[in-house]
Amino acid sequence: MAISQEDLRTVMDRGVAEIIDRNEFRKLLDRDKPLRLKMGFDPSSPDIHLGHTVGLRKLRQLQELGHKVMLIVGDWTAQIGDPSGVSATRPVLTHEQVQENAQTYMTQFFKVVDRDRTEVFWQSEWFGKFDLADVVRLTGPFTVAQMLAREDFRRRWDANRPIAITELLYPLLQAYDSVVVESDVEFGGTDQKFNLLMGRELQEMRGQRPQQCFMVPILVGTDGVQKMSKSLGNYIGVDDAPEEQYGKALSLPDDLIIPYFNLLSDLPTAEIDDMSSAMEGGANPMEFKKRLAREIVATFWSEEDAAAAQAHFEQTVQRGEAPDEAPTLWFARSDGVSGAVAVSSEQGGAKTLVSLSTVEFLYHHHAELGLSQSRTAAKRLVSQGAVEVDGQPAGDTLSLRDGSVVRVGKRRYLRLLEDRS
Amino acid sequence: MAISQEDLRTVMDRGVAEIIDRNEFRKLLDRDKPLRLKMGFDPSSPDIHLGHTVGLRKLRQLQELGHKVMLIVGDWTAQIGDPSGVSATRPVLTHEQVQENAQTYMTQFFKVVDRDRTEVFWQSEWFGKFDLADVVRLTGPFTVAQMLAREDFRRRWDANRPIAITELLYPLLQAYDSVVVESDVEFGGTDQKFNLLMGRELQEMRGQRPQQCFMVPILVGTDGVQKMSKSLGNYIGVDDAPEEQYGKALSLPDDLIIPYFNLLSDLPTAEIDDMSSAMEGGANPMEFKKRLAREIVATFWSEEDAAAAQAHFEQTVQRGEAPDEAPTLWFARSDGVSGAVAVSSEQGGAKTLVSLSTVEFLYHHHAELGLSQSRTAAKRLVSQGAVEVDGQPAGDTLSLRDGSVVRVGKRRYLRLLEDRS
Repeated sequence: MAISQEDLRTVMDRGVAEIIDRNEFRKLLDRDKPLRLKMGFDPSSPDIHLGHTVGLRKLRQLQELGHKVMLIVGDWTAQIGDPSGVSATRPVLTHEQVQENAQTYMTQFFKVVDRDRTEVFWQSEWFGKFDLADVVRLTGPFTVAQMLAREDFRRRWDANRPIAITELLYPLLQAYDSVVVESDVEFGGTDQKFNLLMGRELQEMRGQRPQQCFMVPILVGTDGVQKMSKSLGNYIGVDDAPEEQYGKALSLPDDLIIPYFNLLSDLPTAEIDDMSSAMEGGANPMEFKKRLAREIVATFWSEEDAAAAQAHFEQTVQRGEAPDEAPTLWFARSDGVSGAVAVSSEQGGAKTLVSLSTVEFLYHHHAELGLSQSRTAAKRLVSQGAVEVDGQPAGDTLSLRDGSVVRVGKRRYLRLLEDRS
Repeated sequence: MAISQEDLRTVMDRGVAEIIDRNEFRKLLDRDKPLRLKMGFDPSSPDIHLGHTVGLRKLRQLQELGHKVMLIVGDWTAQIGDPSGVSATRPVLTHEQVQENAQTYMTQFFKVVDRDRTEVFWQSEWFGKFDLADVVRLTGPFTVAQMLAREDFRRRWDANRPIAITELLYPLLQAYDSVVVESDVEFGGTDQKFNLLMGRELQEMRGQRPQQCFMVPILVGTDGVQKMSKSLGNYIGVDDAPEEQYGKALSLPDDLIIPYFNLLSDLPTAEIDDMSSAMEGGANPMEFKKRLAREIVATFWSEEDAAAAQAHFEQTVQRGEAPDEAPTLWFARSDGVSGAVAVSSEQGGAKTLVSLSTVEFLYHHHAELGLSQSRTAAKRLVSQGAVEVDGQPAGDTLSLRDGSVVRVGKRRYLRLLEDRS
C-alpha cells in the first residue's frame, strides 16, 4: 500500500524500541494486502494505563494505513492461572470473571484502537481442544537450554529460584497463537522480545512466513523513575476520570514532557522538537505540560473533558479554590458536626462554629472525602500535613467556620455550610 | 497375605537392587488385598531379552503370592516417537505397528508372567483424551531444576547437550500412569529410579498412597562387561531359538554363572551357594554352565527343548560334528558346485571333488549358510579365520570332498554331498 515518507518515519521511528527485522517490515508495508497485526493480552489484569497505549497507538497508526489488528484474548492462560514458582496459589479466575475482565479490557482498548479494523480471537478457540499430542508436537523441537536463555528465566535459574515446567510452555503457547492467526507482525514491549521471537521460529517450522516483531519502548511512570505500572502506583489509567488524568499528568517531572509527547500524542515530531528547544531556551515547562495533559485527556475522553479538567485544575490547585462541585456538609451549630465528636461549639473568634479532632473528622466523614474508613490512615494524613482548612495546614484540632473548605491531599475537598433552618 | 520366611527372603533379597521403602513394602506384603504391581513398556522396542526378565521373574514370584500385575502398554509414547535432543527424526510408528509390536512384546512377556493375574492397560486410554489443562495441572507443581536433577538429564545439561522440553514431560507422564492404575508398587531397573520416585510424588499430590519403587539389578551381557542390550549384541533373547539360547549361555564368562543363576532361575539359594563353593574348590565350571543354559531354555521353551539344545551343542561344538539337521548342498562333479565359480574339478588327492574360491563359495551360498549377500562380509569372515572345512581352517581356496562339512562361525554348517545321479 502506498505510504508517505512522513507516515513511514512515524511508524518506523517514533515510539519504536526495536523491529525484527526492519527491512522485511518495510517491505511488508508496501504489499497490497492488509497486514495482520497481532497483539495479545492477559485478562487477569484488565486495566490499561498509558504505558500500554504506546503499543496501541502504533496499532492505530497502522490501522489508519489500512492494516488489521488481531486481538488475542488470553482467556485460556488466565483460566489456568499463573503457575510461577512453587506457590501455585494464585486464585484461578472463573469463566465469568475472565469474560468480564476481557470486556473491561476491550472497552479501554478500543478507546485507542479502531474496533472496525480489529478481529478478536479467544485462545480457548484453539487451546480448548489442544491435546497431549499437540503439546508434544509443540514442545518437541525446543530445548530446555533455549528457554532458559530467556532473561527472566536465566536470572531465576542462576539464583536457584524455582521455574515450573509449565512456565516453559508459555512462550510456546504464545508462539502458537501467532501460527493460528497467521500473524504478520506481533507487537509487545521490549520485555516480550523472547516470546515474539518464539513466534517467528514456530511459524517458520510450521511453514509460515515468520512474523515481524515490533517492540515499543517501556514508558517511565509519573514518578520519573520506574516503569509505569499499576502496582507501583505511578500510572495514569485509560479509565481514570479526566481530572485525575489531568492532575497526574501535571505531576510529571519536566524531563518526561518531551518523551510523553513523542510516545503518547499525534503532534508532529517537528512541533515537539520546537517545544524541546523552547524549554532548553528557558521557557516555562508548565504550559507544555498542560498541553500534554490536555492531549492525554482528549485522547481517552474528549476535547470538552480536557478543557473542563484544565479549568478544574487551575481553579483548585493553582488558585487553591475548592472546586465548584466539592461536596457540601451541612451542619447545625448546636449539634456540632454530624457524626463527629464535637469538642466545643462556639469557641475562639466570632466565626468559629465548631472545633474538633482532625482525625475524628476525617474518620467520620471518610465517605464524603473518598478516604478509607480507618483512624490509622486518618492519623497518617494529619501527620503528613496532607490536611488543610481554608488554605492553612490543619493541626490535631480542626477549627471550622461557615463556608470553610477542608482539603485532603491534592484533590479531595469538603465544603462546610451552616444549617440555619 | 501369609508369606513364608523363605518366600519373603527370595522376594526381598534375591534379584533386588533397591526398594523404596523396604519397611512399607514389607507391610504391604502382609495386607489382605492383592497388591497392584505396575510395570510399563515401550512398544517401540518389543523384544525382551534376559536382562528384562530379571524384573519379570520378580512379578511372577509376587503373582504366585497372590498379587496382580498392571501391565502398561506405552502405546501413546511410542506413537509420538522419541523427541530426544535436536534430531526429532525417529520415524513415528503407525497405530498398526504399535499394536503389532505390543502383541510381540506380550507374547514374550507372558512366557514369564502369569497372564491370568495380569491386567493390561493402554496409555492411550487416558492420554488420548488428555488436554492442555491436564498438562498444565500435571507440570505446574514440578520445577525445571527438579527434572534436571535426574542423572541422565544432568549429565547432558552439564555437557551442553540438548534436552527437549518434551523430554521433561516423560517422567511426569509415567508418573501419571501410576495415578491412573493406582499402583502399589512400580517395577523397573535402577536406571528408572527417578521416574519411579516421580510416581510416588505425584500419587501423594493426588491423594493416593505413594507407590513403592522396586528396582532390579541391571544384568551384565554375555560379553561379561556391559549391560545386556540388543544394540550391543551381547544379549540372549526370550524369543531366540533353543539352540541359540543354549549356545549363547555356554559362551558366558565363568564368573557370570552364579549371578545368572541368582537372577534368572528358581534354584534355591542354598543350592546356588553350593555350586559357587564347588567352583571355588576347583570343580569344572562347564557342567554348571550347561545346567544354567538348560534352565534358561526350559524357562522360555520346555524341558525337552532344553535337552535337545544340549544334545545339539555336544554334537556340534564339543565333538565338532555337523548337526544332523545341517543343510545339504548336492553337486555333480562335472558341474562344479552349483552357482559357484569352479576353479578346477578333480585336482590334488583322489577325494577332492572341487576346489574353488572361499569368498565366492560363501557369496553364492549365503542363503543356505544364513549369511548376508556380500562379498565384503565374506572376505571378512575368511580373513578372521571364521571358515572351516572338516575341522580345518579354510584358506582363500576351498577344497571340498564328498561329505565335507563347511562351518562358518560357531553355528552355521553346510554339508556337501556328491550328486551321482
